Amino acid sequence: MKIISNPPLRRWERLAQRPALRQEKLMRTVEKIFSEIRKRGDKAVLKYSTKFDYPSQTAFPIEKETVEKASEALSERLKQAIELAKHNIEIFHLSQREEIRKVETTQGVVCWRESRPIERVGIYIPGGSAPLFSTVLMLAIPAKIAGCSEIILCTPPNIYGEIHPAILYTANLVGVNRIFAVGGIQAIGAMTFGTESIPKVDKIFGPGNQYVMAAKKIATLYGTAIDMPAGPSEVLVVADETCNPSFVASDLLSQAEHGPDSQVILLSNNKKVVKDIDAKLNEQLLALPRKEIAEEALKNSRAIVFDSLEECMYFSNLYAPEHLILAVENPHLLARKVVNAGSVFLGNYSCESAGDYASGTNHTLPTSGYAKAYSGVSLDSFIKKITFQQLSEEGLLQIGPAIEVMAETEQLYAHKNAVTLRLGEIMSKRLIDNNNETNI
Amino acid sequence: MKIISNPPLRRWERLAQRPALRQEKLMRTVEKIFSEIRKRGDKAVLKYSTKFDYPSQTAFPIEKETVEKASEALSERLKQAIELAKHNIEIFHLSQREEIRKVETTQGVVCWRESRPIERVGIYIPGGSAPLFSTVLMLAIPAKIAGCSEIILCTPPNIYGEIHPAILYTANLVGVNRIFAVGGIQAIGAMTFGTESIPKVDKIFGPGNQYVMAAKKIATLYGTAIDMPAGPSEVLVVADETCNPSFVASDLLSQAEHGPDSQVILLSNNKKVVKDIDAKLNEQLLALPRKEIAEEALKNSRAIVFDSLEECMYFSNLYAPEHLILAVENPHLLARKVVNAGSVFLGNYSCESAGDYASGTNHTLPTSGYAKAYSGVSLDSFIKKITFQQLSEEGLLQIGPAIEVMAETEQLYAHKNAVTLRLGEIMSKRLIDNNNETNI
Repeated sequence: MKIISNPPLRRWERLAQRPALRQEKLMRTVEKIFSEIRKRGDKAVLKYSTKFDYPSQTAFPIEKETVEKASEALSERLKQAIELAKHNIEIFHLSQREEIRKVETTQGVVCWRESRPIERVGIYIPGGSAPLFSTVLMLAIPAKIAGCSEIILCTPPNIYGEIHPAILYTANLVGVNRIFAVGGIQAIGAMTFGTESIPKVDKIFGPGNQYVMAAKKIATLYGTAIDMPAGPSEVLVVADETCNPSFVASDLLSQAEHGPDSQVILLSNNKKVVKDIDAKLNEQLLALPRKEIAEEALKNSRAIVFDSLEECMYFSNLYAPEHLILAVENPHLLARKVVNAGSVFLGNYSCESAGDYASGTNHTLPTSGYAKAYSGVSLDSFIKKITFQQLSEEGLLQIGPAIEVMAETEQLYAHKNAVTLRLGEIMSKRLIDNNNETNI
Repeated sequence: MKIISNPPLRRWERLAQRPALRQEKLMRTVEKIFSEIRKRGDKAVLKYSTKFDYPSQTAFPIEKETVEKASEALSERLKQAIELAKHNIEIFHLSQREEIRKVETTQGVVCWRESRPIERVGIYIPGGSAPLFSTVLMLAIPAKIAGCSEIILCTPPNIYGEIHPAILYTANLVGVNRIFAVGGIQAIGAMTFGTESIPKVDKIFGPGNQYVMAAKKIATLYGTAIDMPAGPSEVLVVADETCNPSFVASDLLSQAEHGPDSQVILLSNNKKVVKDIDAKLNEQLLALPRKEIAEEALKNSRAIVFDSLEECMYFSNLYAPEHLILAVENPHLLARKVVNAGSVFLGNYSCESAGDYASGTNHTLPTSGYAKAYSGVSLDSFIKKITFQQLSEEGLLQIGPAIEVMAETEQLYAHKNAVTLRLGEIMSKRLIDNNNETNI
């Protein structure tokens, strides 16, 4: 790793930058495929799916039988592990449910919010050699807790038309309604517009390569929501002299092995610690099957020595990392200074892979500095919070005159009139009541 | 209004559609102006601002003195009304704060979420004859409660370089840090890229015409978050025979007067009620200063008679209205059936203008069917919820083996190794402790 010592403040912004991605050409490719899918539906989707993934493909839906058989291909040990992860993810996401809180803002004016599920959600799971069944857990479990009525999953088939059994098994376990063997831009396009066999959804979730990411961004222009824009995975570790250099090295490598465009950043107030970690990192790297990928990622990466942990945290907030590991003596003290981050791991035993798989937190997190404005996926990502209000006669008497003058200033006279008419009716009703009382 | 009786189910989807908007040309215009602003900063922004708004403009920031003087131009009655609205909006948005809930998902594995403000937010307020100072309240108050450190506001100057004093006064009252006299695509571009005088922000909020809306969508492609995509304003009213036809007519007109592209929908299980409302509507329309606008909007609008209130609610969820008024005998019963809506108003005295100005709920809401996947603006829109986790040795012993098998299946061996190394250290430490105990 490249080690930088005490960079001057004016260089920080630059050091916090990600490798640039050229998007313009990608966007044009996506627009072209989207326009075909919009016009020709399944036919267009099939054209691209047979071209890029499964040449003999004729249909997308995975048969129920195939899904149920997937269980046989998995070891008991793996199934138990999935069960444990499912349990923890359920507990944590269940804790995110919100009670209805009715608030009387003024006497007779009651306001509150209620959560409602997003009805139709689509989950995208990338293909390739590594079957990301953990992402199925992370997306389908909160969707189920939220009460989404239709949860579909798209994932590319291999050249023989197969989907990895771990993906099928997990999807079935957590209640995915339908699985389609389709990937890439064509999968996102199908879920955006709907085709004869693949339904349109209200919101699309899940990771993917640069094509999938570009397609998700374009999907939002056509009215389909997405979980968040995403870029390559990244981790930032703040380590002091109490850290275990071997542990930190293994965490940096867990991120580096994701892809050649991943980025890892190490910050410390202690140069010796950085050197120790770097030595361990080079040692562990040798034993990795995905060594070449990790090496490539390490080229984008850097270790920076600052004067103090405060400076480390200042830089970390400027960088806004997807994962932030605080491998320091008092991680809770430092955690208070976190402003921008996707997920934070405290102390020597909270390795990033715990959050990636089984602690219960969600691993779909904002990358590329998006943590400045976006949260990771949570139960909130699968619901809408709808506001409700009810005013009594008394309530409208209290706030009506204020509404009238504000509407008048904004020159919205029908807005004013909606109040004036009601106030008039209330007043004349009360006048009649009063008269009746006087007459008795 | 066009009245439709008992349409067959196959026509419902069509009846729930909004008037189509052509976006392609708009998008190209935005891309062109954005690219100029990116390269030439203030110079490019000034070029467009002098062209469209204030020909003699030389700078954007509004002087502190001008802001403070704005108060003199406002009546006491208006200031008191703003104070009342501010109070209610504060109370309701304060109630949206979330306590930290630490959850032990497995013994020794503690996970929780903490809220952190989005640091730099930009508020856009449209220009034109009607000064939307109420939107300043709706956006700056939750930003302030969230703790955003920089809240800027952009709004177009008139031909003389002036901003309406109600906007300046309100912005100052609720803690906006800086105000810039700039509007349109150029304002959104400036906040997306930052210029010499206008800072880049993390998230842009606020309504606008079709140019501003297109610019906000494009801003997201450059990494700036937005509150939500938006289209013309709309209301759907469900009314039964207990409604007050005059009130309902006034609510329909409050929406229709917003703009010629606004849409209002009336649903009922009673044809007579619809006819009564239509009569009142035509009567009230005559007295409106914005009569022409409202008439235009009513051309896009319709009243539909269904067999039952259940059918009305089914259609309403298909339409997913920005505002939903339930002018029925038992609005709470019907409210349970709401799945897709921005904000819901219950009963005869909860007029939409209450929520637009002063009840406390937010008036920045999803339009054009976006309510299927998006919530309106709330405190949540100004914060990130960051996940935290801390594992003890015990915690890692409990879930470590599951992580190992899952990571192995996903072929992420460095992820596995981060656990294996730690488990090894814990086991050998315990072995030494045990031996020491045995020796004593």
